[in-house]
Formats: sequence, C-alpha cells, structure tokens
Amino acid sequence: MYKVGIVGGTGYTGVELMRLLSAHPQVMLTAVTSRGNAGMPVSEMFPSLRGVVDLEFTEPDPERLAECDVVFFATPHGTAMESVPELLGRGVRVIDLGPDFRLRDAATWSRWYKLEHSCPELLDEAVYGLPELYREKIRTARLVANPGCYPTCTLLAVMPLLERGLIATSRLIVDAKSGVSGAGRQAQVRTLLCEAGENFAAYGLPGHRHHPEISQELRQIAKQDVELVFVPHLVPMIRGMETTIYAELTRGDVDLQELYERRYASETFVDVLPAGAVPDTKSVVGTNMCRIAVHRSGKTVIVLAVIDNLTKGASGQAVQNMNLMLGLEETLGLQAAALVP
Amino acid sequence: MYKVGIVGGTGYTGVELMRLLSAHPQVMLTAVTSRGNAGMPVSEMFPSLRGVVDLEFTEPDPERLAECDVVFFATPHGTAMESVPELLGRGVRVIDLGPDFRLRDAATWSRWYKLEHSCPELLDEAVYGLPELYREKIRTARLVANPGCYPTCTLLAVMPLLERGLIATSRLIVDAKSGVSGAGRQAQVRTLLCEAGENFAAYGLPGHRHHPEISQELRQIAKQDVELVFVPHLVPMIRGMETTIYAELTRGDVDLQELYERRYASETFVDVLPAGAVPDTKSVVGTNMCRIAVHRSGKTVIVLAVIDNLTKGASGQAVQNMNLMLGLEETLGLQAAALVP
Amino acid sequence: MYKVGIVGGTGYTGVELMRLLSAHPQVMLTAVTSRGNAGMPVSEMFPSLRGVVDLEFTEPDPERLAECDVVFFATPHGTAMESVPELLGRGVRVIDLGPDFRLRDAATWSRWYKLEHSCPELLDEAVYGLPELYREKIRTARLVANPGCYPTCTLLAVMPLLERGLIATSRLIVDAKSGVSGAGRQAQVRTLLCEAGENFAAYGLPGHRHHPEISQELRQIAKQDVELVFVPHLVPMIRGMETTIYAELTRGDVDLQELYERRYASETFVDVLPAGAVPDTKSVVGTNMCRIAVHRSGKTVIVLAVIDNLTKGASGQAVQNMNLMLGLEETLGLQAAALVP
Amino acid sequence: MYKVGIVGGTGYTGVELMRLLSAHPQVMLTAVTSRGNAGMPVSEMFPSLRGVVDLEFTEPDPERLAECDVVFFATPHGTAMESVPELLGRGVRVIDLGPDFRLRDAATWSRWYKLEHSCPELLDEAVYGLPELYREKIRTARLVANPGCYPTCTLLAVMPLLERGLIATSRLIVDAKSGVSGAGRQAQVRTLLCEAGENFAAYGLPGHRHHPEISQELRQIAKQDVELVFVPHLVPMIRGMETTIYAELTRGDVDLQELYERRYASETFVDVLPAGAVPDTKSVVGTNMCRIAVHRSGKTVIVLAVIDNLTKGASGQAVQNMNLMLGLEETLGLQAAALVP
Repeated sequence: MYKVGIVGGTGYTGVELMRLLSAHPQVMLTAVTSRGNAGMPVSEMFPSLRGVVDLEFTEPDPERLAECDVVFFATPHGTAMESVPELLGRGVRVIDLGPDFRLRDAATWSRWYKLEHSCPELLDEAVYGLPELYREKIRTARLVANPGCYPTCTLLAVMPLLERGLIATSRLIVDAKSGVSGAGRQAQVRTLLCEAGENFAAYGLPGHRHHPEISQELRQIAKQDVELVFVPHLVPMIRGMETTIYAELTRGDVDLQELYERRYASETFVDVLPAGAVPDTKSVVGTNMCRIAVHRSGKTVIVLAVIDNLTKGASGQAVQNMNLMLGLEETLGLQAAALVP
Repeated sequence: MYKVGIVGGTGYTGVELMRLLSAHPQVMLTAVTSRGNAGMPVSEMFPSLRGVVDLEFTEPDPERLAECDVVFFATPHGTAMESVPELLGRGVRVIDLGPDFRLRDAATWSRWYKLEHSCPELLDEAVYGLPELYREKIRTARLVANPGCYPTCTLLAVMPLLERGLIATSRLIVDAKSGVSGAGRQAQVRTLLCEAGENFAAYGLPGHRHHPEISQELRQIAKQDVELVFVPHLVPMIRGMETTIYAELTRGDVDLQELYERRYASETFVDVLPAGAVPDTKSVVGTNMCRIAVHRSGKTVIVLAVIDNLTKGASGQAVQNMNLMLGLEETLGLQAAALVP
Repeated sequence: MYKVGIVGGTGYTGVELMRLLSAHPQVMLTAVTSRGNAGMPVSEMFPSLRGVVDLEFTEPDPERLAECDVVFFATPHGTAMESVPELLGRGVRVIDLGPDFRLRDAATWSRWYKLEHSCPELLDEAVYGLPELYREKIRTARLVANPGCYPTCTLLAVMPLLERGLIATSRLIVDAKSGVSGAGRQAQVRTLLCEAGENFAAYGLPGHRHHPEISQELRQIAKQDVELVFVPHLVPMIRGMETTIYAELTRGDVDLQELYERRYASETFVDVLPAGAVPDTKSVVGTNMCRIAVHRSGKTVIVLAVIDNLTKGASGQAVQNMNLMLGLEETLGLQAAALVP
Repeated sequence: MYKVGIVGGTGYTGVELMRLLSAHPQVMLTAVTSRGNAGMPVSEMFPSLRGVVDLEFTEPDPERLAECDVVFFATPHGTAMESVPELLGRGVRVIDLGPDFRLRDAATWSRWYKLEHSCPELLDEAVYGLPELYREKIRTARLVANPGCYPTCTLLAVMPLLERGLIATSRLIVDAKSGVSGAGRQAQVRTLLCEAGENFAAYGLPGHRHHPEISQELRQIAKQDVELVFVPHLVPMIRGMETTIYAELTRGDVDLQELYERRYASETFVDVLPAGAVPDTKSVVGTNMCRIAVHRSGKTVIVLAVIDNLTKGASGQAVQNMNLMLGLEETLGLQAAALVP
C-alpha cells in the first residue's frame, strides 16, 4: 500500500479525490490538510465519507506530508508553488490539481494569475498530466501538473485532427459548457442555486484562465500557433462538461470516424462514439471517461466531447496520473460505471 | 400615484418587490436603498430590471424616505427596528418584511433573535399583516409586520379548523418544505447549486425562528395554546413552499371540503381545490395565491397548502397590505397568472 | 375587446398564450380547442389558470373559431395548414406558432417535414412574424408565420452585421442552447426529469428543422446565401434559450457596440447590453425581451443573445404580432419584468 | 463466479442493477431481458454502460435464465408472478424488485394491484428482503421479495421504537419525499423535466401502493396493528428519498440516541447520525446506506431517514440480498462512497 496525502481537502476536487482514493486497492490516504478546519473530522464536513474516511483535517505539516509517496494539491492558484519545492526535496512526488505548474512560461503565468511565480525553475520539469499525450513522461515525473477541465475536454477532442494537420490553425472555435461544480465550493452569489439554477449564460469573456493553457498545448500538438476562440458557459447542473468544437477541414478526403477510432483504440478512458451519435454528460458522471463524437457540416468539422469536470477533468485524471507514476495498472480505482440516472 | 420606497433592495424579497411595484398602476417607486451598493444602478445588479427600474441604490437617507407614502423594509432582523420609529414619526407608513415586529412579546423576540428589541413599545401597535385574518386592522395601520413565509402557508391552511375548534390543540404537526430562495441571496455554502441542488433534507431542528411566530398566531385563532411540531425542509428548487399539516379531528361529522370553501369564498388569494385534488407549487409561482386541499385519513385531517414563498410568502403579501393601507383595490398589481411551465 | 381563439391549447406554447392573453387589456379569449380533451375545463389541466381562464377545451369547430378576430394555432406541423384556408376565407386573421407557413418554398418544406404541403399557395402570402424585420408587412397580414425560437434568437443576433455586410457569409456558426420546454409537453423518455436533468448534450445533428428557416431569413437579410453551421443543445432547465454566434469580420474598423445600439435603438424588445457584459437567460424569463451582447476575439465577432423560448421565442412574439395586426400598441400585455430569481 | 440474470432491464432499477453487478467481484451478468428491445445492445440504450456491459437485450427465455444462479426481476407488478414459479422449479433463486411477492395476503394484493395473483401459494414462502429484519431467512430463501423504497426508508427509521414498544400505535405519521426516478423510466407527462422540475407536491392521496406493505411490516414488528398515515411527495431531483416520521412517545425516560446507536451497531448499511444532526439525501446518492437521525419535540419523537431510492431502496438492497443468499460477504460490491457533490 502506498501512502498518499491531500493538501486542501475541503473543495470539490478534494472530496472527489477522497471518494476515489478510498476505493483504490493500492493506496492508503494518510493525511488531508485544511488550514481553516484543522481538527475537524473529514466526515463531519462531508457526511458522505462517514465510515469511509476516518481522518481529521490537519495543518499542512511538511513532516507529515513527507511520509507520503504521493501528495495531491487541491488548492487555489499560488498555494502549491509555495510548498512543492520542499516536498520534492524530501523525495515526495507531487500532483498539482491547481494551475501553478501548467504553463511552461513564467511570464505568461504571472500575467494570467496576477502573481509572481515563486519557483519558475520547476515549470520546465513539471509534466503536463494528460496521459493520452504525455504518458511516458508522467511515469517518471516527480511533479505532474494536472490539466484543467476545459483543456482536457478540448485537447482530447482535437488531438487527432491537429496531430495529422487536418484543420486550419487560423481559427479553432471551442464553445464549452460546464456544470457549476467547476466554480468550486466557495460561498459566492453567482453560484447559488437561485442564481445559477434555471439559468444559462456565457462567462469569462474576454479571457478565461484556461485559454493560455489550451493554447500552449495546441501549439505543442500542432507544432505551430493555433488561433483559439474559447467561450465557456455555465450550465445549471452540478457535474459534467461538454465542448462543441468547430474547425475548418483542410482536406476533404479523410474518414474522420476511422481517424478518431484508430487514434484512441488503445485508450481506456477515451470512447469514440459510433458515427452519427452525440455524447451526453450524464453518461460519464463520476467516471474518468471522455466520450467523443465527430461530425461534419460542409467544410466544417464539429467535434463533441464530454467529461465529468471533477473526474477526468480533475481528480480522476489525477488518480490516473498517480497510477502511472507508481507503476500501477493505469485504470486501478477508476473503473466504476457512471451513475445513471 | 403614491410614492413608495424600499429599504434593503438587494435581496430576493427586494427584487420581487421591485418586479411587482413596477407593474402596479397606482404607485411609483422613488427610492431603493442599499448601504453596500449606493450609487450602483439597480438594473446593473438585476439585469431583469433594465428598462423597468431606472433608479440607483442610495444610502438609506431618512429625508428621502420621508417623502414616501409607504416604505417597505426588506432587511435582515434588527435593521428595521432602528429606523422605523423615525419614519413613523414623520408620517410615513411602514411595511416590514423582516421579523422585527411580528412577535408581540419583546422577551420572546429577544430570546429567538439574540438581540435586545430597540422599540418594544411598537410591538403592540404593529399589525400582523395577514389580510385573511386582520384585514380591517391593516387598513388603518401605521406599521404592518408582514408575516413570514412558513407562518403564512401554515396559518391559511389551519385557520378554518382552529376557528371552529375542530382539531385537538395538543399536537399540530407541520411538515413544511421550502424552495431555496427562502434562504436569501447571501453567499453561503449550503445554498450553492452544488450543495442544495439534487438534495433534500430537513433543517432548523430543534427550533426554527418561525416557530414562535406560528405559535403566537395559532393561539390567537384558537384562543388557547396549540402544541406545535414544526419541521422545515429545503427543496432543490428556487421558488415555492408547501406545508403538509396533520391534526387530530375532534369531531367526525364535519364536511371539511365545505368548511374550507365557505371560509375562503370571498378571499381572492386563497383557492380551495376540489375534493381529492392536491396542490403543486408550480401552480402559484410568481403569484399571490395560496392553494389548499383538505384530506382525511381516519381521525387525522391532512391539509396541504402551497404558496410562492417570495410572493404570498413575502413581497406579494406586502403589496396586498399596501393596497389595503392605501385604500386601493386589494388585488391591484397582483393578478398575473403563474408562470407555467 | 377583440375576440381571440387558440387551436391546440394543451402544449407549452398554448398555456403561455393563455397566460399572456388573460392579462391583455384589449382581448378576450373565447375559445381554446383540443381534440383529445374537449369538455375538460382548461383550469383542470392547468391549475395555474384557476380563476383566470374560465373556459373548457372544445373541438376545433370552424363556426366558433370564425367568430374570432384572431386565431392562434399552437399545433404540431401539418395541423394548421389543414384549417387555415377556411378560416382566412371567413375573414379571420391567423397567427401560426407552428412551422406550416414559415418556409416560402413548398418543396423545401416537404423535404424537412416529410409531408406534402396542403396549401402551398399561402406560403407566398404568409408573413414571417419577426417584427424587427417585417413590422410593416405584419400590420396588414392575414396570415402570420410566427418564427421558431432558434430562428428568433439567431436572426436578432446577426441582423445588424448581415444588413451591413460586415461578416463573411462563407461560414456562420450558431451554437445554440435551449431549455427543455422547447421539446414540448408530449410524454417522451428523453425529456423526463431523470434523463434531461443534470445532463447536457447536443442534439438534432446532422440537421434540425430550424436550419432551413434560419437559412432562408439569413439569405433575405444578406441578399445572398449564408453558409450556416447550426448545432442546438439541450440545457437542463425549463425556460430560456441562448445562442453564441461566431462569424468572421470582413472589416476591422467597425464599432460593433455602436452598430448594435443604433440598430435596436427603437426596438422595445431588443436590449443591447453594455460593452463587456454577457446576457443570461434568467433575465428574460417570462418576458418578450431579447438581450444581446457583442464581443470580439481577433477577427472573430462573437454575438451572445438570450430569449425565453416560450415568450419571445413563441407566444410572446405571437402576441406582439397580434398587437401589430390589430393596430394596438405593440407592447400591450407584454411589459411584465422577468421573474427573478 | 456466479451467473446472474435480469428480467426487465430497461428501467431505472434495471440500469442501477447493471451498474452495481458489473462492479461486483463474484458475479457475472449473463442475461438481460426486454421484450420490446430484444437484439439491441444494452450499451446502445445506456451509453454509460459502453465498455462495461457487453450484452444484448434478449427475449425472456426460461432456458437461458435457468442457467443463472440468481435472477432479478425488475419488472412492473404482475410480470414476475407469471415466470417465477417455473424458474424456482428449475432451481433458480429469484429476487423480485417489483411488488408481486411483498404482501403475504393475496386478497390484499389483489385489492391494491387490481389483478388476481397467479401464484398465491408462493406468498407464504417469499421472504421480505429487508436484511436488517429478516437476515437469517434471506440466507436460505428461494424467493426474496425486495422491499419498496418507501417501506425500506420507513421501517428502518421506526424499527427501534416499535420493537421496544416505545411509541403509540394509534397514529404513526410518515411524511415521505422521493426523487423523480421513483416514478420510473416510462414516458409520462407528470415526470417531464418541465412538469416535475421546480415543483413540489404531494401525490398518491388517498392511498399509495406502498401503504399496505408498510402496514404489514409495522404489524410484524409491533406485534399489533399500527395506524399509519402516509403522505408521499415528489421532489424535483433525480435520486434520493427522505422520510420525516412523527410518533407519540409512550415513555419519556428513554435515551433515543443510545437506543438507535445500539440497535444498528452491527448494521453496515444503517448509519445513526450524532445527536442533533440531520441527514441529507446527497450523502447517500448511489450507495446502499440509510442514514438516520432521531429528534424529540415534547412528547413527539421525530425520526429523519434518507436513502437512495434506487440503491438501498431497490437495486442495492437486491444485491445485498443476493450476497446473503449466495453466502458472500454482505457488503460485496456495495462499498463505494456517495457521489458528492
């Protein structure tokens, strides 16, 4: 049994991590920290974990965390970068679910997060934790930057097209929709049931923080800049994310269905739907799956992809990365079917 | 045109008041106050009021409020009692949607609201604003204490039985359910969409603040103490309230259907459903209606009642009271049908 | 008072029409038909209309309908075209909320609706009931084809750009999202709360029936073919529709904000939001408003528009058309503010 | 590995069974029947099961079912009783999630289900599958009648009080609330998102079919008749059930908290909350847990209990029963934590 810890366990990615890790056959959760709630039983804040997680929240004590094989950071931006260097120095491997190590360029990071980066030297070392793209690097990484939910759902959807140079890079339109849990567990008016319920709107215009992250990886895949138009929307539901992506095909003679099926044939967590189908978010709730469908309208290719923003979009992918880093079966603890209805 | 003002216009009862008053043919809204948002256009906070309410939030300036014929307080407990005496002194009539003047006994008020009452001398004068019970007193009142949502939905449901002494007063069970808007527009974790959505639970045990208010009025109607068991629940929806009430019949020979129909024959805002029917909250959304059905199971009478907690349960009833106080048609501005679906 | 009738009053556009017409000061609803429910009181099916609509559903009797000044059809495709010719012949003016008269070309209609059109000669006469585009023709029309919800929300959003030739017509992307009421009140599995709730997905690919309707009107406005990519999605909420539209600007020097504000300066039911804002569907629930915001990302213009699919997207627009046809104030009966929260 | 089959796999209890059984380490699902969908891949109807259940729906062929160790019936009333005798005769053990074998009295069954019972001789043999009450009998049963959701949530809540004779049997009030999935996956108007969403109402008055089932078991536990007042309500959410139960204490000197904790000390699937707490349905979503809290108001005891209506209220309890019948660990395949948020 490997020992794992969570720094910042009171948010939605934290409780999702605890749900997944408590069912994982090869790891033992030994520490969950929360500065504001140290001493409170985890199951008092989350009654769903009564009888499942028998820990109290603790202060983020480096001594205790140093005993872990892997530590997850489920913290807002700017927190992980303060503690990660010490933990790495003590031989702990780290998976950061926040954005501190996702951008390779410190200046870009500072511009978007309005903060100086405290350990820019780690940006090069950190591996972007999208296994479908960087699996081999993840296996040996000390520090994995777990991708954002929008980037995960977008990159998996366009990767097959960009890798083969089949779409124009002059304009990629990503119309994205997220359940409200993506906004976190902080008390705020706009995510109250009475505000976000029975409501639909775009947000984050002109610029969402996932924009530079998506752009960076699009460039990696395409080997050139991709002009991204990205509009996220808030959906009146708890979990789930969908992206509808529009791009211009540069060649008309490609069998898109076959392309996608081949690209993802050996990926357990990417499911290419049959031609003509459309994915719905409910079919992936609570799972690490990404389901994708590809359609065409004239010269425009339309790719539809869904994930659970808290699972494949955050904590599930983090567990997938942990499995890779520990040399375990990649799917361990991630095989439950979606909760339907 | 009468001039009206609202103190505390940024909550859900405030915006509901503005919706109703802006459509009222005989009043003009001249002031909406908010300490924290003075200077902001009302329609910037509430885009639904663009083109409808062309005011800015202002500081609660007594001079300006004193020009109003009626001032509504849509404030948390403890606020109205600080300002009401001065306004009354200047000849303004006041309707308080908060709880400051609902309890006739200052000691009881202090016990439940953990605060000394600053003008207990007004508790006797204040009229409890349930028109179906106190219509004549309301017409001439200077100060109306607008009832809480649970008390409104409960009292209308049991009034016919208690007035006639048909049920045991030794135990009245009120199982009440409210939409989340009853909890207000404050940022708090428990009313986030991700917490209150797809969830159902009781709350407020062992004692909800509407308990003493309901008890007080039950005693008024029954002319004796009534032992109240009151359990409120939170329903994953925005608007609407239902009470299911259980009492023991002391006589078996009463035609309950006829009793209710007769009692409410002349009440525009109380609708007794046909025998066998069951009311649903959707049928009253956005309206000032209370729909009631009465059933029997052995010696137990079961009364089901629904209101919109923000309309008949708050702002609509406040407008009904205002109409009475100004000598206007009681239904003015309150006749729109429910929004269905 | 004008007499009006509704053919097909048991669906969501029917009950919304009844809500609006019952509050309209210049019309009297005299007939509501339903083949399957003749004899049932309207308020038995819709308790929200108790005390508001005191009619029974009747068979669609031409004699009775012929006494109306205006008859609304709120029926599935293929129904109105069977009865409209006779009603027109008897001097009744007709507003069809269904699709029977929206397409000017009978062959196109037949292809999309899999049915021969029974009165193609009326397709030329019928006026497409988008007042912001065809106001003068509507005033004198005998037969108005009330637009679909997606076309309304799309056309209002792009009209200013297309009229001025500011965007490329080679690709217009409309990513549209609708509340579930757009699917109607028929019993079907996919719109059950347990299927559509907490779920998000595209639908209608490869081709939704509103596609040819939007294309037809885009061509009218642009005076040339516009290549439309249209992907509708189902949102887990009852009312509301949003379109996010992407187009390529052909000129970089236009003040888009000023363009939209000027275009809609005299339109009561189109509200151009301040620069930088984003419209949400809740702000228009139950109203006839369309709120629009225009953004830019490089050479791409992004237009966001919201309506209530049942009001401006159906029954509200039908009442607006009726007002025009009867020479009444265009906004009569349509001025209530949105229900918020 | 044991072989199991499901008769009637297209409803919500069917898909929940498949979710649970596919993750169960000791069973293999070998047949899922559906008369109407024979030949269709299960994962085409339920995309959540792509890669999880690799079967097609088949006709309910007794030969094939006879190869199973256990067959589950997830069918409407009247179906199981036609096939169960034959399967039992062939040595198959049966768990019926429907109501065919829940009532011990054939005449009562016929009165409530408006149908003659076709094998009344099995009613005596069938074991009521509430393990917390009949564990030992279930282990050896050939035929288990899996309890209804309301009975499960009610009986677990009152069992400790009734077993000890601590409450008056002259009136037990059960105010019950269920998510919409309890109504099944049939296309019907009243459970459409637009009807049941943002709505709350009682239903099933004067008599719900779970009434005689609850009464029968109350009598078993109390050794006398218990006068039950049972009012179910529909909650606008997908999964989850809550009961708030009111009874009169016949003794005042009992430590209720201690009573409940002791009664359920060895029950894995019943969780007694700490004194003062209140259970919410979200904390049990997707799990086989029942969480209970006990409160007192004067002489009235108030018991609050929550379950997931599809899991502990149906398919999870069925798996629990299967584990007992097969001599497996009772909790096998049922240990996942609730999906939160």
